[in-house]
Amino acid sequence: MKTEIVARRLDAIRAEMKKVDLDAFIVPRADEYLGEYVPERNERLQWASGFTGSAGLVVVLADSAAVFVDGRYTIQVRQQVPESLFEFHHLVEEPHAQWLANTLSAGSRVGYDPRMHALKWQLETKALLAKKQIELQEVTENPIDRSWDDRPAPGKAPAMLLDEVYTGQDSVSKRQQIGELIASKGADSALISQPDSIAWLLNIRGNDVTHVPILLGFSILGSDGKMAMFTDLDKLPEDIDEHVGEGVTFHAEETVATALEDLGKRGAIVIADPEATNAWCQLLVKDSGGTLIADSDPVLLPKAQKNATELAGMKDCHINDAAAEIRFLAWLDKEVTQGNLHDEALLSDTLGSFRLQQEGCMGLSFDTISAAGSNGAMCHYNHLNATPAKLELNNLYLVDSGGQYLNGTTDITRTVIIGEPSADHKRMFTLVLKGHIALDQARFPLGTTGSQLDVLARQFLWQEGFDYDHGTGHGVGCFLSVHEGPQRISKVPNTIALKPGMVVSNEPGYYKEDSYGIRCENLLVVKTCEELSDAETSMLEFEALTMVPFDLRLVEASMLTNSELRWLNDYHTRVQEKLSPLLGEDDQVWLQQATRSI
Amino acid sequence: MKTEIVARRLDAIRAEMKKVDLDAFIVPRADEYLGEYVPERNERLQWASGFTGSAGLVVVLADSAAVFVDGRYTIQVRQQVPESLFEFHHLVEEPHAQWLANTLSAGSRVGYDPRMHALKWQLETKALLAKKQIELQEVTENPIDRSWDDRPAPGKAPAMLLDEVYTGQDSVSKRQQIGELIASKGADSALISQPDSIAWLLNIRGNDVTHVPILLGFSILGSDGKMAMFTDLDKLPEDIDEHVGEGVTFHAEETVATALEDLGKRGAIVIADPEATNAWCQLLVKDSGGTLIADSDPVLLPKAQKNATELAGMKDCHINDAAAEIRFLAWLDKEVTQGNLHDEALLSDTLGSFRLQQEGCMGLSFDTISAAGSNGAMCHYNHLNATPAKLELNNLYLVDSGGQYLNGTTDITRTVIIGEPSADHKRMFTLVLKGHIALDQARFPLGTTGSQLDVLARQFLWQEGFDYDHGTGHGVGCFLSVHEGPQRISKVPNTIALKPGMVVSNEPGYYKEDSYGIRCENLLVVKTCEELSDAETSMLEFEALTMVPFDLRLVEASMLTNSELRWLNDYHTRVQEKLSPLLGEDDQVWLQQATRSI
Repeated sequence: MKTEIVARRLDAIRAEMKKVDLDAFIVPRADEYLGEYVPERNERLQWASGFTGSAGLVVVLADSAAVFVDGRYTIQVRQQVPESLFEFHHLVEEPHAQWLANTLSAGSRVGYDPRMHALKWQLETKALLAKKQIELQEVTENPIDRSWDDRPAPGKAPAMLLDEVYTGQDSVSKRQQIGELIASKGADSALISQPDSIAWLLNIRGNDVTHVPILLGFSILGSDGKMAMFTDLDKLPEDIDEHVGEGVTFHAEETVATALEDLGKRGAIVIADPEATNAWCQLLVKDSGGTLIADSDPVLLPKAQKNATELAGMKDCHINDAAAEIRFLAWLDKEVTQGNLHDEALLSDTLGSFRLQQEGCMGLSFDTISAAGSNGAMCHYNHLNATPAKLELNNLYLVDSGGQYLNGTTDITRTVIIGEPSADHKRMFTLVLKGHIALDQARFPLGTTGSQLDVLARQFLWQEGFDYDHGTGHGVGCFLSVHEGPQRISKVPNTIALKPGMVVSNEPGYYKEDSYGIRCENLLVVKTCEELSDAETSMLEFEALTMVPFDLRLVEASMLTNSELRWLNDYHTRVQEKLSPLLGEDDQVWLQQATRSI
Repeated sequence: MKTEIVARRLDAIRAEMKKVDLDAFIVPRADEYLGEYVPERNERLQWASGFTGSAGLVVVLADSAAVFVDGRYTIQVRQQVPESLFEFHHLVEEPHAQWLANTLSAGSRVGYDPRMHALKWQLETKALLAKKQIELQEVTENPIDRSWDDRPAPGKAPAMLLDEVYTGQDSVSKRQQIGELIASKGADSALISQPDSIAWLLNIRGNDVTHVPILLGFSILGSDGKMAMFTDLDKLPEDIDEHVGEGVTFHAEETVATALEDLGKRGAIVIADPEATNAWCQLLVKDSGGTLIADSDPVLLPKAQKNATELAGMKDCHINDAAAEIRFLAWLDKEVTQGNLHDEALLSDTLGSFRLQQEGCMGLSFDTISAAGSNGAMCHYNHLNATPAKLELNNLYLVDSGGQYLNGTTDITRTVIIGEPSADHKRMFTLVLKGHIALDQARFPLGTTGSQLDVLARQFLWQEGFDYDHGTGHGVGCFLSVHEGPQRISKVPNTIALKPGMVVSNEPGYYKEDSYGIRCENLLVVKTCEELSDAETSMLEFEALTMVPFDLRLVEASMLTNSELRWLNDYHTRVQEKLSPLLGEDDQVWLQQATRSI
């Protein structure tokens, strides 16, 4: 963005700050729904700075400004944000609140829009600034909204009703189930503000942000299963009432403030998630007399444990999705053989077009990571941030992508060799694959968390002095967000036990700076282990949903144990059996050799 | 204990309760130092109930009483505590505070001695009882102390000064180091009440409880490294002042209350561990105007990371200790061959006598677990609680024992076959051993916690449907407590990273109810991994301190990978090389075959 445009916008914010006597104003990337994606209309951070990354924060002071981004965006931010107007800081290593406390003098007033921050942030930041006699002051109207003349209008794409054929449970019974959970915690109701929780509860999907089929809005769910939903009423299909069944009322989103205040005035005891629901909602309840119970969104755990219908859908859509991925990998091999070293954008677009041709595919589940050679070493590479690179001969290509289907969500990463692999490529790929296999094969007692299993995927890399700087697995929704909690497979301690029906990714990797990146990612579903006749404990295990071959050209077979070889051959046999019938003749031939026994 | 004795004691407690208008009085197992062991004089729980277990709690009501114990003691408690006088409850599943809240009526007053409980317990119990309008009321004098006529006098065993030859760091520099830690947290001083922390700081050892060479007392350490120690002055050797160097004053233990109040009156900011320092100490500071910072004992982490001198001592004493253990195992084999199936007590005593003959051995580091056959299935079996069982032919014998040496502390478990092993014995032993080997061999990046590694020891058991219901590893002191924090290898999330110099046990096991128990335990030290030439991250690994063969008759070699076989043979070669020179001729022959290559 041109420097003068940004300068003008900062000045507009400063003018608004002056009117309400603020020395600073905080612009986070989030909007009021605190989700991973925000609609264009709510890209306030981008408007104020030019920065397009998925995480970041700007602080505007009277005479200066600062932008905070994490390690993924340190290069990008300097390309997008004018350095004549901003200081650059690290989001994690130089937290903005601490920076404000160090920078401002006692008596300063820092403005924030309580809609754009979680309550936890508000409490912690207020306390931290108070130590330096700095006041955290909420604004009633966002200075950016007052200044943003050509702000896009709210989207009007209608929501869709998702049939029980896909959801497996009607809204009435879901709301009853969560209502009982709410009652069991001694509460009258819960604020459900995460749009994917709302979508799950009402069996609806929307089109309000890219990649996640959600309808933006807020809701209050009572312990009796009754729900008040606040959203753009124009987006609701005519037969919504019949679809959701008894006990749901729909209201214009603007009326949520009054409803929250009414809840408080009635002295209600309300569950709200301090990290996932914005401060504004929660303070409205509290300040009008209600009692907040800080607890996680009660929908999270039931939503994470897919029912039989959802699991059947997830399996089906993964087969369809695999057909697109295999078609792409076969095409890629042929192109490379013919000397066509395409660029990352063309590759990404080709894969996307194959995926969108699949039955039931509603779109991509996230921006495809299409990374040739050294670009693969950047875990969150996006070829759209710069000129897309071309494939490099005798180097790796990493492609991480997924689709949204009516019956599920997919997420897969494959790493393939373009040309001939080096011994180093094969060694590192095989270490990553060994970790992938160890996690896939693991059996574990009920009560085990993802944190406990994480090391299984890292152990072979660790043994030789390597590691990867990201989690091993995240939860995945069913035709919902490709990143969902509460379970997680990661170094970070997590107390949520894995339960049957949960879907997690299994994605160890290895990244060699300036050289290449490797990641092997399947989605897995947690299920009861049936094979153990003399097990003394209830054991769980995983079943792979993803059905796409790993590149055998990158496998150093001598590094695999017999058990690992058996796993790989068995997996490839299953892939061959399930996928071959869905492919054209050429692709069948490709799959045959790609799944050959080694 | 005879019922009438216990009845009389309960009545005496009740008479004291009546004087101060209490409806209940809580008797925990702890004394004011909140340690694992208490001197006979402080065995109040045993005095009031007859129960001798290492964990438990009694609640005395006006007309009844209840004893709370955990799963280890459900049988023992019924043998020791008269059921005509007590209800029996589970310590964990029916927590005493909740039981009191359910049992007593509003307005009741529950007495407790604040010296015998951690501050955390006091805060949580007070809040829980308050919800039912029940008051938690501290007593100024313990009702038991007022009633216990023949209470043993305090021990008078003198403390000893531990030479820098063993400690590797003088007290002045230790106190300086911890003082800086205290300052870095913004505090003036810290309450150091864990006697092993005090012993480490002053380079002294004591004889006040069994198995842990500590001097009981309290101390206050300033951010300037100056320390006030409150203890029985008669126990201090004459040259103590010279030994500890500048900056330590010694005071009679009775004067600690005044000192804590003075601290408060000065408005001091004091670090105190809410779980490890009693409520009485902390409330004295707070109630007289001081500020408490709830944080863990600042000595824990430096004490856990042994210095080069301590590590050399730990290695040496493990060699000595191994000689005793090997001598015992060789003797045991010979006795069994000759048809002598001894009882657990004789076995334990024999091992103990061998150990005490070793150079520098100051005693045992805990009560030996000597468990024949099915007794081995009880993880915390103590043969002294009932008639010691005799060895069972063609079944296992499990022996978990350790010693205190001037230069270190040992803890080892070996499981051996008496006669011929079954296929089941071999299968289960080998699964446990595979886990032991996997943990021993692990390499991991700086920052990794024991919780992350725990699964490595369990994975093979899990794979076949088995598990063990205890942690995999605990920290071990250097001529101090055989159980020390803050690191731990366990399923329970723990945020303390393993660091070079830490000593941990590696003790996976398997317990088949009513049949047998298996545990394979070595102590390991964490060290920097030197072998990896191309490691990208700073990697750590373990080195085994324990040098005693595993019973090869129990190893099913076909279940081991080549790498595991290599580990086992390499370990046995090292044992043979290091230990053979220390043994008599017969024992050398035994060791030769016990460490043969397989």
